[in-house]
Amino acid sequence: MRLSRYFLPILRETPKEAEIVSHRLMLRAGMIRQEQAGIYAWLPLGLRVLNKISAIVREEQNRAGAIELLMPTIQPAELWRESGRYEDYGKEMLRIKDRHERDMLFGPTNEEMITEIFRAYVRSYKDLPLNLYHIQWKFRDEVRPRFGVMRSREFLMKDAYSFDIDAESARHSYNKMFVAYLRTFARMGLTAIPMVADTGPIGGDLSHEFIILASTGESEVFCHKDYLEFAPPPADIDFDDRASVQGVVDKWRSLYAATSEMHDAKAFDALPDDAKVSARGIEVGHIFYFGTKYSQPMRAVVNGPDGKEVAVHGGSYGIGPSRLAAAIIEASHDDAGMIWPESIAPFHVGLVNLKVGDAAVDAACLDLYDKLSRAGIDMLYDDRDERPGAKFATMDLIGLPHQLIVGPKGLAEGKVEMKNRRSGARETLSPDEAFNKLTARSAA
Amino acid sequence: MRLSRYFLPILRETPKEAEIVSHRLMLRAGMIRQEQAGIYAWLPLGLRVLNKISAIVREEQNRAGAIELLMPTIQPAELWRESGRYEDYGKEMLRIKDRHERDMLFGPTNEEMITEIFRAYVRSYKDLPLNLYHIQWKFRDEVRPRFGVMRSREFLMKDAYSFDIDAESARHSYNKMFVAYLRTFARMGLTAIPMVADTGPIGGDLSHEFIILASTGESEVFCHKDYLEFAPPPADIDFDDRASVQGVVDKWRSLYAATSEMHDAKAFDALPDDAKVSARGIEVGHIFYFGTKYSQPMRAVVNGPDGKEVAVHGGSYGIGPSRLAAAIIEASHDDAGMIWPESIAPFHVGLVNLKVGDAAVDAACLDLYDKLSRAGIDMLYDDRDERPGAKFATMDLIGLPHQLIVGPKGLAEGKVEMKNRRSGARETLSPDEAFNKLTARSAA
Repeated sequence: MRLSRYFLPILRETPKEAEIVSHRLMLRAGMIRQEQAGIYAWLPLGLRVLNKISAIVREEQNRAGAIELLMPTIQPAELWRESGRYEDYGKEMLRIKDRHERDMLFGPTNEEMITEIFRAYVRSYKDLPLNLYHIQWKFRDEVRPRFGVMRSREFLMKDAYSFDIDAESARHSYNKMFVAYLRTFARMGLTAIPMVADTGPIGGDLSHEFIILASTGESEVFCHKDYLEFAPPPADIDFDDRASVQGVVDKWRSLYAATSEMHDAKAFDALPDDAKVSARGIEVGHIFYFGTKYSQPMRAVVNGPDGKEVAVHGGSYGIGPSRLAAAIIEASHDDAGMIWPESIAPFHVGLVNLKVGDAAVDAACLDLYDKLSRAGIDMLYDDRDERPGAKFATMDLIGLPHQLIVGPKGLAEGKVEMKNRRSGARETLSPDEAFNKLTARSAA
Repeated sequence: MRLSRYFLPILRETPKEAEIVSHRLMLRAGMIRQEQAGIYAWLPLGLRVLNKISAIVREEQNRAGAIELLMPTIQPAELWRESGRYEDYGKEMLRIKDRHERDMLFGPTNEEMITEIFRAYVRSYKDLPLNLYHIQWKFRDEVRPRFGVMRSREFLMKDAYSFDIDAESARHSYNKMFVAYLRTFARMGLTAIPMVADTGPIGGDLSHEFIILASTGESEVFCHKDYLEFAPPPADIDFDDRASVQGVVDKWRSLYAATSEMHDAKAFDALPDDAKVSARGIEVGHIFYFGTKYSQPMRAVVNGPDGKEVAVHGGSYGIGPSRLAAAIIEASHDDAGMIWPESIAPFHVGLVNLKVGDAAVDAACLDLYDKLSRAGIDMLYDDRDERPGAKFATMDLIGLPHQLIVGPKGLAEGKVEMKNRRSGARETLSPDEAFNKLTARSAA
């Protein structure tokens, strides 16, 4: 993409309303715009990040055997009356009447609707297990939305729903999502620790929140230090192998980790002092096993092997891609701006033309831009007629992993400069060497 | 994808409520499920089609220089009061109050919001032209939603918005979308004819609807027969070359074509009899030039070359991917089911195992499944223990372009069968020959 033809509205001033660094940086870098309290437009740079996050979430859901569908945003109130949650949900539910005065709502979550879909089609235990997910916009009418997309009212959520014939099989479905979540966050450069959690309005008796540590986290969390060094599960794990999936889960549940609601001070105090981590945390995922909480009242039953009807055992599994965009920034930035991991970066390489209008520099930039683009590297080419200082500041702010800087002086000696945004390391290379390094990196 | 692990709830009976063939087939094939009047869940097979349609729309928008962002579904009422459309829009607008009694709405379209974004950031004519689009769910509270996703209340729309310094430049932006639309529909196997159209609630003085002819179309249309043979514009058209873009548009406006609202019976009657086409049509896209209709009241102004403020000239450009899924079925089906064009097919190849449990057949199927999947072919493998007749009926119903049929009898002679869904042609081939044919087709 050529910056002269892109829409990247960088703000010069730091917006005053933003309380946390991710919110500030997303506004300054032209990633998001608030349209009203807790409701944001995703500007082009932000949308690229959001889509990369969603793509990783989707890949790991698919790998674990979940199947994607897409439910509508608007739901009928009747479904929520069936489960008994319509009145319970309170003011966070955005209630709507249509032109015929029918009660509807903007979905805050989809347990009821997916149960309705399940019961409409599935009749036999032979069709289980089943895990269906979607990535769709949700709305929760928070009384005081804040922190930008970290805690917005309209937000993107991946929510998966598992259906099983009994509790044991449902446990395996839960474990599969547990493992998929570990892989999902690791691929985004995050160290997320599963912590025993309260089940809240979803219900059930087993639940984990996946928490990343960050000083701006919304809640206090407690865990064993060793979690920070645990390796994520490998890509080739066999999700059908119950024992090996259980092995991963056991390992990640072997040490102390809990949110403040579930904190057991005595157990935590028993840890060696140098193993205690007490910190602020950001929730980036939440999984639940709730048994027959929805299938019972909503009559989601199948015929078991003995021909008798059984209410299915369910779980639900949420990740918020829009919140993750902010969480990743909280975990990875410096004074100059964001620092995107390769897997999430809106573009891989920022190409900086230091003298637009200089025939040799323009030609060298265009050549690198074309070649690297053709090699599958996402390029943002700053071809604007701007001062070098402003261009460097923009590139550091938006945090692309690699900067490729082309100016008349270096080029006279056949050289360009490459800067690694994270380490700050700079190399002087020929354009061909730069091409080779960048394409080798991308292949890795 | 193995069918035994997929979620493809085929209905045995034809749903009675469905009035048109696309609605019937989408329900029967488990592509969509109605959650309430005019509101649908997209089941896995349907979502794959919807995503393929959106991907083509996106590619052609990007090729024409439009830039993707994503606006929220919920909009503040104030914006619509600024443009004067809040009261005008009537009962089709889904109006909502949040917990603080603020007036909001579920966006039926986004002229106001994109104008707000534009005016927040763009100050100079140097930043023009600009075309921003998004693909987002919209809601129009139709009094009588019908025909499934052809005329639903919650629907997916790609809407693009162009901003230009003057009418002449805005005309070029309009022309670019005109050309992009021709390419978009052609890539989906549709012959869409641009017809002079009424501007309705969007406003403005120039508008075209893109119409495909189908006996179930919602309106009567009139055009010159030659349009049906026009070739779409090439992929390498230079969108910056005003003359060549104008040339394409002129060609596609050279003959008579109009919807019933804009029909000029006298002009139509003057055509030779064998050139007259009068038929039912389905609108698949609609583009508008509306000048300063939104920029004036909403103060979307930039500094022109002479330093004076100018209200920008705008256009908007809509395509509904959810409606297109139905329109493509209306245009391409037979008595046995849907017939997807390659570009839109949810899977390219349906692999049918005629004798699950037969070691040789299972092994041959798995080998083909693995090899073809690795070669980038989207495979649906029917590995269920079902009668061949049921498997054939399912494959014909869901309309994948190619069926690859493996049974014990053929395999004993080293052969599998390949069936082309559209032509019905069958070939007997070795597995290697089938692999080569299918991978060559996909590369083409």
